[in-house]
Amino acid sequence: MTMSTANTPQIHPVVLVGGGPGAWDLITVRGMYALQNADVILADHLGPTQDLHKLCDVDAKEVIDVSKLPYQRQTSQEKINELLIEHARAGRKVARLKGGDPYVFGRGFEEVQALAAASLPVEVIPGVTSAVSVPALAGVPVTHRGVVHAFTVVSGHLPPGHPKSLLDWGALAQSGATLSIIMGVKNARAIAQAVQDGGRSPQTPVAFIQEGTMEGERTFRCTLGSLGETVESATIAPPAVFVIGDVAGLTT
Amino acid sequence: MTMSTANTPQIHPVVLVGGGPGAWDLITVRGMYALQNADVILADHLGPTQDLHKLCDVDAKEVIDVSKLPYQRQTSQEKINELLIEHARAGRKVARLKGGDPYVFGRGFEEVQALAAASLPVEVIPGVTSAVSVPALAGVPVTHRGVVHAFTVVSGHLPPGHPKSLLDWGALAQSGATLSIIMGVKNARAIAQAVQDGGRSPQTPVAFIQEGTMEGERTFRCTLGSLGETVESATIAPPAVFVIGDVAGLTT
Repeated sequence: MTMSTANTPQIHPVVLVGGGPGAWDLITVRGMYALQNADVILADHLGPTQDLHKLCDVDAKEVIDVSKLPYQRQTSQEKINELLIEHARAGRKVARLKGGDPYVFGRGFEEVQALAAASLPVEVIPGVTSAVSVPALAGVPVTHRGVVHAFTVVSGHLPPGHPKSLLDWGALAQSGATLSIIMGVKNARAIAQAVQDGGRSPQTPVAFIQEGTMEGERTFRCTLGSLGETVESATIAPPAVFVIGDVAGLTT
Repeated sequence: MTMSTANTPQIHPVVLVGGGPGAWDLITVRGMYALQNADVILADHLGPTQDLHKLCDVDAKEVIDVSKLPYQRQTSQEKINELLIEHARAGRKVARLKGGDPYVFGRGFEEVQALAAASLPVEVIPGVTSAVSVPALAGVPVTHRGVVHAFTVVSGHLPPGHPKSLLDWGALAQSGATLSIIMGVKNARAIAQAVQDGGRSPQTPVAFIQEGTMEGERTFRCTLGSLGETVESATIAPPAVFVIGDVAGLTT
């Protein structure tokens, strides 16, 4: 146990909590306890933020919505890092609540690195990723024995062929893995084309789910060949998950 | 509400619960409630089975270890399906507790199909997959901005080139995705070779974690070129997760 003095507050580990896909009770038990134990919660707009009161006594805490801080359209990662460090150095118990899992395109490791650089301790609590759970709750398993032996979770925020893309879409198409794509709504048509160019049949089943696990959930089934058109005609909006592969055509 | 009579018991949905990677508190809140609500729990040896008493009142329930039923070395999937159907038809509230996530190589959808074929209702509760959470808790993020835009979760139960393998390891190597491999201990050397044959450098960082999130956790870092040798010299045993990719070399 560390003793505190007036000048040197006791420092607690900052806890990065994976909040899961959205429904409040899809956070882990460990994550819920971390929220209950926190003095300050820095929350994104995804995950269980809307129903935080079901997980902890929000009135006893300072809840900071880092998705929309005053005078900032979107909170920069630098600003979030600063806030984490500032509150932790003040001796507060800080929980950083993120949608999904902190390390699945969640910039979690950037926050870990920033805290480490500030000599502050940090703990990570994994979460249920929307790339697996959203399809699951819509009836689509990302794997199935005899059908597929791998699945790939892809960030679709850059179109195939973009100079900053780190992906080989042809290889992704050829790998034999189910593709589960998040943050890919605006690039859905280009992604569908790239996967077909990589050799997957236009008849490949596709499922896409908007606002999975939430009240506004909408699920669509189509094929790779009709994906672009379906996304546009159904006016799909983020957040959404796309599953490309034979598993998207399985039925009970 | 369905009324029960002596001859037709009220039927409750069978709940497939993803138990997470092993530590008892990495189950979801929804999963914990499903266990608390159950009359019968059919459990694997993975997931939070060892600490079930921390999640629910086990004395008030029938807990069936389907990983080792009497007179069966390993419970067949058919036998598990039969038990689920039998208990559900008897009007019991049945929870099927699985390690990780039910649909990440968990045969979950086979159980859903079997229950549907028996006209029984079923609910799925996603879990934290060990393929992401075990590396995370060992300090390895499967994604990191500017480093990688995808990760692939692979079942390594078949060696590359096996007639029943559904994977193109060359394409997996080329895709640019982090590879997170579970059930791959015995094929680790062959997998490392296949990924190098596919074009990944022998210097590619690798992390492997045995018994992640549990008391016996051991973590090793090596390279793709030394993976086979390291697994053998360290006598790695299942369950273990391997992460292949630049993220395995990141530090704070």
